[in-house]
Amino acid sequence: MTGYSLHRPLPIGEVPRWDIETGVAVIGFGAAGACAALEAARGGARTTLFEMGSGSGGASALSGGEIYIGGGSDAQKAAGFADTPEALAAYLKLAGGPDADAAKCDLYAAQSLAHYEWLKAQGVPYKGSFVPGKIIEPATDDTLIWSGSEEAWPFYETAAPAPRGHVIQFEGWGGGRLLVDILERNVRAAGVDVRTDARVVALIADGPAIVGLVVRIDNRDHFVRAGSTVICTGGFCMNQDMIRRYAPEALKLSDPIGENDNGSGILMGMGAGGDAIHMDEFFTTCPWIMPESLVKGIFVNRNGQRFINEDCYHGRVSRTMIDQPGDRVWLLVDNAIFARPIDLARIDIAAVGESWEEVERELGLPEDTLSATVRTFNRYAAEGEDPLWHKAAKWLKVLDEPPFAALELNFAGSYFSFFTLGGLATRPTGEVLDRAREPVPGLFAAGRATAGLPRWGHGYSSGMSLADCTFFGRQAGMAAAARVRETA
Amino acid sequence: MTGYSLHRPLPIGEVPRWDIETGVAVIGFGAAGACAALEAARGGARTTLFEMGSGSGGASALSGGEIYIGGGSDAQKAAGFADTPEALAAYLKLAGGPDADAAKCDLYAAQSLAHYEWLKAQGVPYKGSFVPGKIIEPATDDTLIWSGSEEAWPFYETAAPAPRGHVIQFEGWGGGRLLVDILERNVRAAGVDVRTDARVVALIADGPAIVGLVVRIDNRDHFVRAGSTVICTGGFCMNQDMIRRYAPEALKLSDPIGENDNGSGILMGMGAGGDAIHMDEFFTTCPWIMPESLVKGIFVNRNGQRFINEDCYHGRVSRTMIDQPGDRVWLLVDNAIFARPIDLARIDIAAVGESWEEVERELGLPEDTLSATVRTFNRYAAEGEDPLWHKAAKWLKVLDEPPFAALELNFAGSYFSFFTLGGLATRPTGEVLDRAREPVPGLFAAGRATAGLPRWGHGYSSGMSLADCTFFGRQAGMAAAARVRETA
Repeated sequence: MTGYSLHRPLPIGEVPRWDIETGVAVIGFGAAGACAALEAARGGARTTLFEMGSGSGGASALSGGEIYIGGGSDAQKAAGFADTPEALAAYLKLAGGPDADAAKCDLYAAQSLAHYEWLKAQGVPYKGSFVPGKIIEPATDDTLIWSGSEEAWPFYETAAPAPRGHVIQFEGWGGGRLLVDILERNVRAAGVDVRTDARVVALIADGPAIVGLVVRIDNRDHFVRAGSTVICTGGFCMNQDMIRRYAPEALKLSDPIGENDNGSGILMGMGAGGDAIHMDEFFTTCPWIMPESLVKGIFVNRNGQRFINEDCYHGRVSRTMIDQPGDRVWLLVDNAIFARPIDLARIDIAAVGESWEEVERELGLPEDTLSATVRTFNRYAAEGEDPLWHKAAKWLKVLDEPPFAALELNFAGSYFSFFTLGGLATRPTGEVLDRAREPVPGLFAAGRATAGLPRWGHGYSSGMSLADCTFFGRQAGMAAAARVRETA
Repeated sequence: MTGYSLHRPLPIGEVPRWDIETGVAVIGFGAAGACAALEAARGGARTTLFEMGSGSGGASALSGGEIYIGGGSDAQKAAGFADTPEALAAYLKLAGGPDADAAKCDLYAAQSLAHYEWLKAQGVPYKGSFVPGKIIEPATDDTLIWSGSEEAWPFYETAAPAPRGHVIQFEGWGGGRLLVDILERNVRAAGVDVRTDARVVALIADGPAIVGLVVRIDNRDHFVRAGSTVICTGGFCMNQDMIRRYAPEALKLSDPIGENDNGSGILMGMGAGGDAIHMDEFFTTCPWIMPESLVKGIFVNRNGQRFINEDCYHGRVSRTMIDQPGDRVWLLVDNAIFARPIDLARIDIAAVGESWEEVERELGLPEDTLSATVRTFNRYAAEGEDPLWHKAAKWLKVLDEPPFAALELNFAGSYFSFFTLGGLATRPTGEVLDRAREPVPGLFAAGRATAGLPRWGHGYSSGMSLADCTFFGRQAGMAAAARVRETA
């Protein structure tokens, strides 16, 4: 064990020697770190990337490799969608919740198409083909999908909808690994000095400025002098203690999506004076929309009440489930739309009946609760309306074909994956802000170590996090390199 | 303007002179600061109290002067309630939510009666008389009331209920002012050096240790050397920027209960390395239970759905309202229980009808939503049951006597008072903990600048905050004085 702390930078006066000197030090080799390192190196800075694992990856490599892009891409146009940067910005602001970062939303919306071209230039393949419907990721190698709540109420009222989930061309799920591999290839080609099995244990400070870091490599502390440091260490979903202190609602969930997402970078940034905001926010989802016919079912809570328009993005629906009283919700389906849920979701059939009253009884609910909910839903669905939740007409189906079933989504038992959305406050440049809204000199951050475009669990859409990681990772790398140039 | 920052302690090397030297410096003259100063002085420490306002008060003086006390007090016994420390501890842990501080709950439960005797010894008057029913504060000078969700589901299942709201003897509302006045009298008698109009603008650090503070008095910076510093500055409900960054759900509310609750102490503590936890949590309430007959009504959200047992503590009910979709909820009452709500609550009559269907239509709700909710509620209430929310039988009333009315509680328009519950992480001794769970040497905190007994808006009960302020203020004062003795 070293005596260094994630929580307090080592004063420069206590540094015994410099083992490594670099321009830009990047911590973490997921998509954010790769993009930061790439732009830093291309910006002319000597760049070193430290990764605690044995290779690149992070949570990015566990993802579908989907990036939220809009404003009128080739794929959007080919599929007949006329998206605009304004509509994209409006959607991102809705999705960002009550404290959406307007500056980041506007910048990203304005440069989203250029970023898409940049990704292609790195070798990220996009077939440009659209798959309609509500899916999690394409099972094919198609590359454009609906990946959020764009068409759902209330989002469509404010932001003109378009599909914006641009998925890396990859046969089947899990293209995130390929995305990171491609970024890694570029990182290495750009001359970045990549150090794996290299765990950063402390930052080094000269007064308020961050001037380097202490890295544990081969069981020995290395003192790294760096002109700029970029924290790209991901969120804290793997750190139970942080979850308990900052986001205890997520204690209900047992399937974190993460690898080394232990919050270490957030803690180091806070220790350096950085502000951490929206730490209670998290994304969660259960892949309940597979098969898609299930979207025509209706969700009820333990009191038999509906609580969301089920045609929202599956993550928004899932996050709202967690707000419900009790520890489970049910998806009500009739025989016409029933199909066995995807195994991954671990959803059980909790009750079956020839009438909704029978299902209600079998679930142990009071009379005229669930059955009243279905009756009212059916009465309006027959007219193509959902006056309570404004579910779109194409997903409305009178649930009147017996047998009827209640599919159970249990928060602890079903597959509710989650990751955290709160983190360091940063400028669009990646500069880490302190609590007085001033930059911590020399310190940058990107990705889920920050509160970025995604910062509200109820608004998250697929691809928002990788959009944030890749685009703002690049901004951080550019700004970090510029600072090295300016201070040289 | 000074050049000092709440966000970063001034290094001791930059202190030009010492204007004041003291043993214990207490910041803030609400109940927490008063109790801390009192115990510090009585513990033998030279004690100086700095208050930015012109006199004592803080949010404590805006309160009803009610303290959550239990375990078998004279007043409880006289009223026939057999409370125990175990039941009190169990209730506090439920009320503290998913990350309740077990150590604080247990310590407070064990010493609650001794603390009550201490309060009496300071001269705080208690008549010892119980007022039954659901009230906010006694309108008389009685001093024991039900002040939480003790008798309500699900609390009574785990913690044996007893009334624990011990209110200072005072005719009418607002006894908090008297409570602080009495504490102030003791503070002055104990020889505490009280400095008002004295705004603390920075802490002073010697390495990781806090060794003093910079105070602005008469437009001049005073440098104060202190053996221990105790932050008792309250929460951050008056700081819109902090609300936005840390607790944006509270942006819905417009009536903060606070005076100078600007979060300055929390920011200074964080700047000194302290951890701030549960920053998203807040208490809110609307005084909708006056007159009490309204408790027999049922709340529905904009979809006509019930969402809570209405016999819970009014703050728990109010906090749950804020979780509902939309910006308002309705309290449904029939002619038998209708009474005009207390003016303070700013509640309007939104609809009146001879049938629940008419009320439903008048509110613009879809058919068979609100009316179905009432029908189901009535069907079971007639049998003395509430199978959905387990509202106690004594509050169940079939709502079948026309005319019927919907009383509207609009989050922005009705009187939803609120204050924040998140703050510095502390030990029961008041030692401020850093993010590694180690004390910040020399720094203590108590009251709403900390995450104390109350730290979950859905569990708050009246008197929990003053219990926390007074008891843990005392602990902090004692520990701060002990540290001065030990380091002397």
